[in-house]
Amino acid sequence: MPLLSFPGISTLIAKGVYDAAFPLHDVSVSREVLFEEWARYSAFYKYQPIDLVRKYFGEKIGLYFAWLGVYTQLLIPASIVGIIVFGYGVATVDTNIPSLEMCDERLNFTMCPLCDGACDYWHLSTACGTARASHLFDNPATVFFAIFMSLWAVLFLEHWKRRQISLSFSWDLTGIEEDEEHPRPKYETILLEKRQRNTSAVLYTIHFLDIYHTLTNCQSIFFSLCCQFGLTFSAVFGVIIYRITISALMAMSPDPETKSNVRVTVTATAVIINLVVILILDEIYGTVALWLTELEIPKTETNFEERLILKAFLLKFMNAYAPIFYVAFFKGRFAGRPGSYVYVFNDYRMEECAPGGCLIELCVQLSIIMLGKQLIQNNIFEIGIPKLKKLIRTLKEKEPTQKEKDGERPPRQWNLDYALVPFEGLTPEYMEMIIQFGFVSLFVASFPLAPLFALLNNVIEIRLDARKFVTELRRPVAARAKDIGIWYNILSGMGKLSVIINAFVIAFTSDFIPRLVYQYMYSQTGTMHGFIDHTLSFFNVSNFKPGTAPHSSDHGDITVCRYKDYREPPWSSDAYQFSKQYWSVLSARLAFVILFQNLVMFLSLMVAWVIPDVPKTIVEQLKREKKLLVDLFLQEEKEKFQLIQTRPLFWTSLCPESLGSRLLRNIRLLEEWIFKQLDLILPRCYHLAVTYVML
Amino acid sequence: MPLLSFPGISTLIAKGVYDAAFPLHDVSVSREVLFEEWARYSAFYKYQPIDLVRKYFGEKIGLYFAWLGVYTQLLIPASIVGIIVFGYGVATVDTNIPSLEMCDERLNFTMCPLCDGACDYWHLSTACGTARASHLFDNPATVFFAIFMSLWAVLFLEHWKRRQISLSFSWDLTGIEEDEEHPRPKYETILLEKRQRNTSAVLYTIHFLDIYHTLTNCQSIFFSLCCQFGLTFSAVFGVIIYRITISALMAMSPDPETKSNVRVTVTATAVIINLVVILILDEIYGTVALWLTELEIPKTETNFEERLILKAFLLKFMNAYAPIFYVAFFKGRFAGRPGSYVYVFNDYRMEECAPGGCLIELCVQLSIIMLGKQLIQNNIFEIGIPKLKKLIRTLKEKEPTQKEKDGERPPRQWNLDYALVPFEGLTPEYMEMIIQFGFVSLFVASFPLAPLFALLNNVIEIRLDARKFVTELRRPVAARAKDIGIWYNILSGMGKLSVIINAFVIAFTSDFIPRLVYQYMYSQTGTMHGFIDHTLSFFNVSNFKPGTAPHSSDHGDITVCRYKDYREPPWSSDAYQFSKQYWSVLSARLAFVILFQNLVMFLSLMVAWVIPDVPKTIVEQLKREKKLLVDLFLQEEKEKFQLIQTRPLFWTSLCPESLGSRLLRNIRLLEEWIFKQLDLILPRCYHLAVTYVML
Repeated sequence: MPLLSFPGISTLIAKGVYDAAFPLHDVSVSREVLFEEWARYSAFYKYQPIDLVRKYFGEKIGLYFAWLGVYTQLLIPASIVGIIVFGYGVATVDTNIPSLEMCDERLNFTMCPLCDGACDYWHLSTACGTARASHLFDNPATVFFAIFMSLWAVLFLEHWKRRQISLSFSWDLTGIEEDEEHPRPKYETILLEKRQRNTSAVLYTIHFLDIYHTLTNCQSIFFSLCCQFGLTFSAVFGVIIYRITISALMAMSPDPETKSNVRVTVTATAVIINLVVILILDEIYGTVALWLTELEIPKTETNFEERLILKAFLLKFMNAYAPIFYVAFFKGRFAGRPGSYVYVFNDYRMEECAPGGCLIELCVQLSIIMLGKQLIQNNIFEIGIPKLKKLIRTLKEKEPTQKEKDGERPPRQWNLDYALVPFEGLTPEYMEMIIQFGFVSLFVASFPLAPLFALLNNVIEIRLDARKFVTELRRPVAARAKDIGIWYNILSGMGKLSVIINAFVIAFTSDFIPRLVYQYMYSQTGTMHGFIDHTLSFFNVSNFKPGTAPHSSDHGDITVCRYKDYREPPWSSDAYQFSKQYWSVLSARLAFVILFQNLVMFLSLMVAWVIPDVPKTIVEQLKREKKLLVDLFLQEEKEKFQLIQTRPLFWTSLCPESLGSRLLRNIRLLEEWIFKQLDLILPRCYHLAVTYVML
Repeated sequence: MPLLSFPGISTLIAKGVYDAAFPLHDVSVSREVLFEEWARYSAFYKYQPIDLVRKYFGEKIGLYFAWLGVYTQLLIPASIVGIIVFGYGVATVDTNIPSLEMCDERLNFTMCPLCDGACDYWHLSTACGTARASHLFDNPATVFFAIFMSLWAVLFLEHWKRRQISLSFSWDLTGIEEDEEHPRPKYETILLEKRQRNTSAVLYTIHFLDIYHTLTNCQSIFFSLCCQFGLTFSAVFGVIIYRITISALMAMSPDPETKSNVRVTVTATAVIINLVVILILDEIYGTVALWLTELEIPKTETNFEERLILKAFLLKFMNAYAPIFYVAFFKGRFAGRPGSYVYVFNDYRMEECAPGGCLIELCVQLSIIMLGKQLIQNNIFEIGIPKLKKLIRTLKEKEPTQKEKDGERPPRQWNLDYALVPFEGLTPEYMEMIIQFGFVSLFVASFPLAPLFALLNNVIEIRLDARKFVTELRRPVAARAKDIGIWYNILSGMGKLSVIINAFVIAFTSDFIPRLVYQYMYSQTGTMHGFIDHTLSFFNVSNFKPGTAPHSSDHGDITVCRYKDYREPPWSSDAYQFSKQYWSVLSARLAFVILFQNLVMFLSLMVAWVIPDVPKTIVEQLKREKKLLVDLFLQEEKEKFQLIQTRPLFWTSLCPESLGSRLLRNIRLLEEWIFKQLDLILPRCYHLAVTYVML
């Protein structure tokens, strides 16, 4: 039966007395209009009819779509700048000296083998492709773009703040205060059980329940979260092991065709495994977070939601980004050097980055995970599964309806709506968008096209969600909300995190700093010529550990091979130690991080400071309203004073006394309480008193 | 005449129609009690009677003293930790290997001369004293203390936020909104002049005035601020020149007595000159900031005050800290190296830091400026000058009173109060404390006793200010204020700045990082033995430029001298270039800055997040109040409903209609305005409706 939720109904549903309680869809004009103007894909270029959405679904859902709209809208400039930055990369790839040098076969750098025994020496020019691809994403414009996107994130938050205030003004939400919520049914049940066991001290129990659960569950939650973290890390580590072993096995295969495709095959399959693992764990983590939050027995629904969101966010964030963090900051940094490689399980060498730098791998990883996650989540989880659920539901219902058909009654609206999927909260929708926001902001320095992909996804996402809400879900119970709640804090936290992560990506993952250092400190000509030579260290092949040197070589008699690192040459007194260049480049990288972080933080503060939180039009409107209201009240009170002789009114009985009491402060407690609450009314009383004196 | 300020009186005073307008001092009990309980030095250990202060002087001044009280109270733990940290330095000075090594005469490091020609080589062990003193402030505990103080600053702000909310609750300030202020008389005058010149477009002019002044004055203000900055920097630079020249001159003097005291004499006199310059410029800058703000013609008094404070703060902050910044981050870094010194005016070598490190000089500079500024400002500016002013005033007044004495009338309260000094706002009081807060937080890593000195000063300062307010100033017009306004933002900004500055002080000014790097990277034994040797580079005396080698030496035949820097020795292939050690130490320093900054920022966020802004007691009290109020209203409305037949009341006529209109949204514009404003009342109406239905 359609019912407005009042305390009790949720308990009854939970106990199985009722099957469901939901408001009916409005089959009149509203739903039609919403479908026509909002839920069709062909309306993608239009602004959303937010006021209509709010009227139909309530403020909470209205705010979600408004937020999604603002986000999508602001992705447009970000995408454009991203395309320009990418275009700059494309345009300069043929004039970029480092990638030209890498492709130049005349320079003939003989590189040390990529695996022990089976692999041969190789020429750097064979990695020409990745070097050129790398330049598309790793060029000076990327640094500018990272700064731009950090400011963009601040701008987005500020813009949303303003929009939120405008909405809450026009939706009449300014005055709502959080009313005391009813305790959740679950909480009450547990309290009841406790009370039955120990009837003496109920009030004590309520308090004790909080502390008891906090203490006992803190442990289990902490432990469980650690387990989940462990699970994710072992998944990431598993994929690493997969990559290492498969590369090693494929390298050993005698087929030259297999050998040449090693890197492509391994990277592609590994990323896909990563993606699948992420998607599976995502679902598991959703359940785990729910279970953990149930364990805590939060008192109210809001409390429950906030804790659930925080936990689910932590788990899903880590799940989605752990492999990317690995590629960005750890891959290739613990591989050791020729003659002293790092081995896992005593047999397999730790993996290194592609010769073009880790950035291109980061870029591949990021784009595949982002695109894959969005496509699969959109198609399977948001379209496929609901459809499937609906199908199952209709199949189940078929038998009784068959019998009922004899009565020939046309299906009523509640029967139609009952067949729809129940609404399960906005958390998954927000979560998806927040994780996407992470892709757009956190690692944007390595993948300037991320905003574009996000934009394309969101244009579809809005209509997809709209369609789901209008046609596939039961109408949710309308809920008021002043703001988007904890999501704003999460967004703002991610914005802050993105500054430092982008600083590290530019400084450590990209080759931006080594290039600058080479140009201004080491280059004889002041140009980039010779940069590749400068980044490669020498290795004397006689220093290979027994059995690790190539078994056979097509390159003739090699005495010295090169590898990418800043180390002393074999003929130096402290051979293979980090060279002076290493330390100077490291200093430059760290200095860049400090400079970038503080500059961007300062600029962000300035942006947030310059943009006022409340739009000017609203400030003025509020002022005008206040004035009008005061005038109106004065007028009204004046009229009422004419009647003062006949009957004391509410105002008049209250005001003069309160004025006096404010001066004397000798009133009783209760009166004080009233007067404090009436503070808003008192200025009017004051005016009234003035009018009174003037009359 | 004592008058409450209403629009017009300030204009009349400004035009000289009246001489002054002020509320009279209350000679009854209150002032006596305030003096006894608050304004006497012997009450220094007592809590301030803040409620009494607020009652006598108004909320704005009450908040200042409450803030000062919270700040002083929180300085107590900071001082204690500071003393412990200093105590740790004192306790370990005799076991500290680097300072023992510096004092060890057997090690016999022959250092390069400190000036050209006139100075001789010298033994490092002669700088034993400064090395030992340096250890008192530059030890591992200092790092801990810097982190502690950064968190302390956050804690202080959070604590104050809570206190402010408690106060605004108990002082009944929760509901006050900023009322529309009257324009300042000055602004109105200028508007009037403009209007007379161009009568046609008045409204246009108002708008135009804003833009016009913004545009024309922006230039002049920017220019003027630049001038002031230039003035400060030239003052600092002047002192540097003074130091360089005087040291050079004294070093050349034949008297050995003079020679040995060079450093002490020069440092002491230079710091005193710095101090005097700061005090003089401080007064000038106060006037300049006022003049600049007048130029802008801000519309309202609040606006005026905020702009004035911001400007005055910028100027005074820079003035007070410029010499300290110089010593912390610039001194000794541009001095060059033996054989290639940096010269100013072609003659004088840039100054270097003392052999014990720059930190000890920073410490001396900091303590003298801090103590001197406080003592002089307290004694001269806050006690001396007001007394002097009063004396002048009474001398001036004497003649007319002589004549009046014939009438033999006893002086009335307004005559007595008129003789007092007029109140000139809280800005100077706040400014003094904020600059002190800077000394306590910004450079605390170099001077752990700063909180102690601040505490001692403030204990006196509170009573001094109290005495001034109670006995020496005319009673200020009471003003309401919700919070301490822009000062909170300035404090919070300083807290943020202090994190990065302390990170740099520890990383670059102290020897903490080089010591760590030596211990874990270079030391053969894993101890600090040999650290001093490691920090000193070699210089071949034959590489001195002609005329710069010592004219005569007591040290016999020297071929190699040492200097403090990480450079390649003369026998290396790239002699005197920065060595690998230099770059590795630099990397470690920068890495420390990143680590420290992000760790402390993270911890600060956590602290701010964990401490709720509103104290729990107040949250509960508010809840209880709300409940009582709703109950009361329900009760009252129920009673009124009994009378509903006889006469329609204000509430009943309004509410049902509004309920309907909320659903229909077909009401007229004016009605909507009213209802929005009445949002606070509507929930009650709702309850009313419920009651109505139940009846």
